[in-house]
Amino acid sequence: MALVTLLTDFGDADGFVGAMRGVLLSHAPGARLVDVAHHVPRGDVAKAARVLARAAPCFPAGTVHLVVVDPGVGSSRRPVAVAAGHHLFVAPDNGVLGPTLARLGGPTAAVEIRVDAASARISSTFHGRDVFAPAAAALVAGASLAALGDALASPLVALPAAPPGRVIEVDAYGNLITDVPADGPVALQIAGHTLHGPATCYADVALGELVLVRGSEGTLEVAVRDGSAAARLGVGVGAPVACVATPGERGFAP
Amino acid sequence: MALVTLLTDFGDADGFVGAMRGVLLSHAPGARLVDVAHHVPRGDVAKAARVLARAAPCFPAGTVHLVVVDPGVGSSRRPVAVAAGHHLFVAPDNGVLGPTLARLGGPTAAVEIRVDAASARISSTFHGRDVFAPAAAALVAGASLAALGDALASPLVALPAAPPGRVIEVDAYGNLITDVPADGPVALQIAGHTLHGPATCYADVALGELVLVRGSEGTLEVAVRDGSAAARLGVGVGAPVACVATPGERGFAP
Amino acid sequence: MALVTLLTDFGDADGFVGAMRGVLLSHAPGARLVDVAHHVPRGDVAKAARVLARAAPCFPAGTVHLVVVDPGVGSSRRPVAVAAGHHLFVAPDNGVLGPTLARLGGPTAAVEIRVDAASARISSTFHGRDVFAPAAAALVAGASLAALGDALASPLVALPAAPPGRVIEVDAYGNLITDVPADGPVALQIAGHTLHGPATCYADVALGELVLVRGSEGTLEVAVRDGSAAARLGVGVGAPVACVATPGERGFAP
Repeated sequence: MALVTLLTDFGDADGFVGAMRGVLLSHAPGARLVDVAHHVPRGDVAKAARVLARAAPCFPAGTVHLVVVDPGVGSSRRPVAVAAGHHLFVAPDNGVLGPTLARLGGPTAAVEIRVDAASARISSTFHGRDVFAPAAAALVAGASLAALGDALASPLVALPAAPPGRVIEVDAYGNLITDVPADGPVALQIAGHTLHGPATCYADVALGELVLVRGSEGTLEVAVRDGSAAARLGVGVGAPVACVATPGERGFAP
Repeated sequence: MALVTLLTDFGDADGFVGAMRGVLLSHAPGARLVDVAHHVPRGDVAKAARVLARAAPCFPAGTVHLVVVDPGVGSSRRPVAVAAGHHLFVAPDNGVLGPTLARLGGPTAAVEIRVDAASARISSTFHGRDVFAPAAAALVAGASLAALGDALASPLVALPAAPPGRVIEVDAYGNLITDVPADGPVALQIAGHTLHGPATCYADVALGELVLVRGSEGTLEVAVRDGSAAARLGVGVGAPVACVATPGERGFAP
Repeated sequence: MALVTLLTDFGDADGFVGAMRGVLLSHAPGARLVDVAHHVPRGDVAKAARVLARAAPCFPAGTVHLVVVDPGVGSSRRPVAVAAGHHLFVAPDNGVLGPTLARLGGPTAAVEIRVDAASARISSTFHGRDVFAPAAAALVAGASLAALGDALASPLVALPAAPPGRVIEVDAYGNLITDVPADGPVALQIAGHTLHGPATCYADVALGELVLVRGSEGTLEVAVRDGSAAARLGVGVGAPVACVATPGERGFAP
């Protein structure tokens, strides 16, 4: 039976993910559950969107991805199910799917999941258990999108567009991931520092030193070997960066 | 083959859960392992009891639930295996099963797991690996409770009863979960504040504001939208709350 | 199909483990994934080596263990695949496998995983996704070690040998695990304290008191009941300990 991935900001202390896993396995006994991440910062939809875009496309065709980073739970935000690139997604309509759908060529179908809000069995605070897990279980058991609800009456919500030339993510190592494609030799300015690179790897510099590398998704990344660049430079998501071509070599500016 | 859930306070840094998973799969190669939670605060049996009660009933009949939050490991506290509501539980007898068994209608059978304390293969500090995982594996492989040990000679240990009208749990978001049933409009007093509600959802208030909602298990919950009510109010488990009926509407007092 | 265990220092916030899981399941759709640990301190190869040695031998024969604690990613450190005691290991050659291989009787075969460094599909910062997961998937799908690369041209890297009589690990509870075999009554000196034991279990002493126990791997361990010995004593890995035989009883000195 198909895979179901789980991505939440629930952490691992309260059993909320455990409850969702139980619902999934009660509704779809043969489902194979795989975790994407559960310690996304609370309610950080933009971070969750990047995490999903990093992981979801690595899974085989037919995978159902269940995403519950949902600060608007119980409000009028729509629960949605979306198909793209032979993957299926179940999530709140808050922009969390945007970057992933873009990587997969855009949605091929999208429905608003039908919810019986009057049902005493549907809480207003835990749609992961009461709405999204049952929907994902239905999909993994073979239901069509159309069986879950009607086609969306309006486009999916998009995250606010960020201006280019920025740090777009800080990972748990404190690495600063930018949106600047790592296409060749470059000098990058960030927080008053100019870094030349990209280096071959983190270990190209001495312990504790700043290093500019090509990150795992093809953009420039600022790191401190065996340390945190975010802490060292005192910057985070949204910090501006500027590139200048390295003289005599191929370079670019954002 | 049946499911085995795991609930511990071992965290994810030391490989203790990994060792238990290995023992389970060595003894019951077809077992399907599912996590409930592993970052329960160290030795917090009352919290673990609530986490289990939240998650275990969501799983299908026949699931074996393995619980190792066990500050008394190696002492005279009994290792037990218990049947209730078509679920099976393996745990230390320290009260951790109480709320779950109550939700499932009470135990239908309970045994003290036989331990050969003289065996060099049984440590005094890691019964999760040496006692509980092998017992759970035996159950998932089809053993009866009676095969694990004799019926309990005395009742299961119960957690101390808490007086009603309290915060009974703080989740990882800092939400304050009370024991007050959310049956209708109410004003709740907590830490010098009076909150009217329940609101429809967290997003009913502005960012950073206190909100009273109906929690996912049907009791009143105090939250801060995109923040921590525990931090804001400076209270935690055991904090008293008081309810007054909302004039002109259905209400109640604890 | 065989099991694949995962041990990383990636944490659970960024989806890096999720990406690896996706690659594994894309390359080996029937693989059964099991976690050993993902919150090993960043880049702490010595800790990861102990975690692996604790957990890996608990798994059944035929298990593939995938270890990515890899501060030298992208440098000249070799990616290796190793067989030992009917287990298979895929890891960077940085010493992380040493203690586990020793427990399993030493390696029976070892190859350097062939990497096409010129491939645009292989990053210099995420070999867990681009090198190690595909190699582990190949093994679990039945490939031989020889299919992954040539026999190692030089021995595996070893971790620096620590002088005996030390704290060799601090677990997440703050327990201080020493390398001193717990063979009988003893007095252990650490950080200006002398502890007599080993006690039967943590609960042999009052809450908050220091206690000396026989740890789950047979060596002496210093704990604080329901507290952290590391915090209490202000010591960590590498702290010296000294043993003196208990008068009139069997004892030993390191």
